[in-house]
Amino acid sequence: MHFRCEKRDLVEGVSTVQKAILGKSPMAVLEGIYIETGRNEIIMRGSDIDLSIETLIPTTVLEEGRIVIDSKLFGEIIRKLPDSTIELATMDNNTVLISCENSEFNLLYLNAEEFPMLPDIGRQERIAIKEHVFKNLIRATSFAVAQDETRPILMGVLFEVKNKVLNMVALDGFRLALKSEYLETNDDVSVVIPGKTLNEVAKIISDSDEDLFISFNDNHILFEVKNTKVVSRLLSGNFIKYESIIPADHKLSFKVKRTVFAQSIERASLMAKDGSSRLIKLNIENDKVVITSNSQFGKVREEVDVTMDGDALEIAFNANYLLDTLKIMDEEEVIVEMTSSVSPTILRNSVTDNCKYMVLPVRLAR
Amino acid sequence: MHFRCEKRDLVEGVSTVQKAILGKSPMAVLEGIYIETGRNEIIMRGSDIDLSIETLIPTTVLEEGRIVIDSKLFGEIIRKLPDSTIELATMDNNTVLISCENSEFNLLYLNAEEFPMLPDIGRQERIAIKEHVFKNLIRATSFAVAQDETRPILMGVLFEVKNKVLNMVALDGFRLALKSEYLETNDDVSVVIPGKTLNEVAKIISDSDEDLFISFNDNHILFEVKNTKVVSRLLSGNFIKYESIIPADHKLSFKVKRTVFAQSIERASLMAKDGSSRLIKLNIENDKVVITSNSQFGKVREEVDVTMDGDALEIAFNANYLLDTLKIMDEEEVIVEMTSSVSPTILRNSVTDNCKYMVLPVRLAR
Repeated sequence: MHFRCEKRDLVEGVSTVQKAILGKSPMAVLEGIYIETGRNEIIMRGSDIDLSIETLIPTTVLEEGRIVIDSKLFGEIIRKLPDSTIELATMDNNTVLISCENSEFNLLYLNAEEFPMLPDIGRQERIAIKEHVFKNLIRATSFAVAQDETRPILMGVLFEVKNKVLNMVALDGFRLALKSEYLETNDDVSVVIPGKTLNEVAKIISDSDEDLFISFNDNHILFEVKNTKVVSRLLSGNFIKYESIIPADHKLSFKVKRTVFAQSIERASLMAKDGSSRLIKLNIENDKVVITSNSQFGKVREEVDVTMDGDALEIAFNANYLLDTLKIMDEEEVIVEMTSSVSPTILRNSVTDNCKYMVLPVRLAR
Repeated sequence: MHFRCEKRDLVEGVSTVQKAILGKSPMAVLEGIYIETGRNEIIMRGSDIDLSIETLIPTTVLEEGRIVIDSKLFGEIIRKLPDSTIELATMDNNTVLISCENSEFNLLYLNAEEFPMLPDIGRQERIAIKEHVFKNLIRATSFAVAQDETRPILMGVLFEVKNKVLNMVALDGFRLALKSEYLETNDDVSVVIPGKTLNEVAKIISDSDEDLFISFNDNHILFEVKNTKVVSRLLSGNFIKYESIIPADHKLSFKVKRTVFAQSIERASLMAKDGSSRLIKLNIENDKVVITSNSQFGKVREEVDVTMDGDALEIAFNANYLLDTLKIMDEEEVIVEMTSSVSPTILRNSVTDNCKYMVLPVRLAR
């Protein structure tokens, strides 16, 4: 193998495929980056079996071949080389010579034959969606994915297409995030994508108006973003029927400035930092939300103006769940809907009806 | 106690005095910030006994008094309050009410009488030095301070004034840093300032052309920077006679572009990362420095053009010691002086003769 390419292209390729590489792996080859020459490009690939990322970068190919090279060391070397042309050539003794201006590295490489292929998705219908739209959908839902492994299906985000509407849903037993977008497709779909995969995909896609393409088979999902393919295992099992747990009505609702509300909760939670639950109490009455919290160090009282409709209510929350949600919502004002101090609270946009966030309150000892 | 002040002033004061507060302390009061009302200002103070920082911030004083308030919690609260006027007033039950717009915090405070006074330096001569000059002196030397506590005196920087020249010197047994500046004073001084103190002072002083003032007694040093006083314990004992260990002559010298040299060493050290010593070998011959390093993963060869004078030499270093030095030096080209593969190497500026850096080589097994 022998090729020449520009440093910035190689760095971009390495950074992309490294998102699939975990570091330590029981299979040594998975700690490496697979590199294979093509016609006027090289194919680079990283994989942790569950998630594989492949990208093409333009090169001048002088001799065909393929190798696997240690991801961490290769990445560090490439990033520190001068901004110039880099040449890679395999030598005797299983080493590859990396040269750039006055620098020469000889690195051991691994046998490329043991490196896993990209799972084949087959010829499927592809769903097109704009990069910035999908990036925003991930951001709006993946934070609510369960972090513990007791119910593996909840570590994923439901990707559900029904009647040209894409719903993405995540929930962890304490809260739920649902965001929807119109989608130009005739196929209905329901799969569960690992949260980790979506977080890596979000890092690869840009905020641009260009389309990315999504296709599936029974076990895998393929994202195609410009020169890059991301293939991930899907989670197996049935997702929770989320529609049945979102309350259809409410007894109290209020409209509030999102940032003001979030900042008040954040300050109140400073006093609540003592325990693990970050407990804050909300008193909603007379177009005001009064937020209070106590700890051994003292107490806090925050007052927020709202426009309310319905009965007064006292309700308690883990501040983090409200904050996570308020921070990722994007409209200036949000609507909060409640029924009782023990039933789920809904947060939604005040203008565009394209998302629903549910947070469970904390039951207070009386 | 009761006063009103602007959030940004209070945040600046808290950030300044927190630099002396370590967090957990056997004396609860030292985890707090001392606040005392003055005429049109408050005096804030933080201390860990060895190091104390006091600063004044403008306030409208409504009632005199003094308290100690938990540093971490108070800092977090103040930083998260709106950018507006903050009011502090002591209440019954040893609490202080902090109010700002729609926020009210009640925090427990501690008795201010147990808080240590600022050590009294007495009426001494003050040395004036421009803030940016002193900041640069700290940066140029404190990195070489010893980190282990086996020889406490080496955890400080020598501050020595002789014949209107200030020499600051740090050394740790493997390297030495010496930087000098002309100083308008008639007094000769020789004290050792803890490295930690200087690092905190460097954070407080700006890059401006204004003067800061330094005075001493036998045990303490006082820095006066605008509204802020920093008092630190001095280290006791005699500093090493540094002049006798800096070689007076050399057999080989070369001039090299500092950044190019540093980048080559940095790349070479990537291969040397394996062990703890980050060993690199330098071969100096025919106006070239060839840097090599080996590990189980492969090897590297870097070539750097130099202008040399003297005999060829092969010498090995811990890459970190060379890198630390090259990174803090500021001229485009540096001079490197060597005598043998086992004697100290000197690095100095090529234009201004105001610093000397010494690095010990690593003796190679033959």
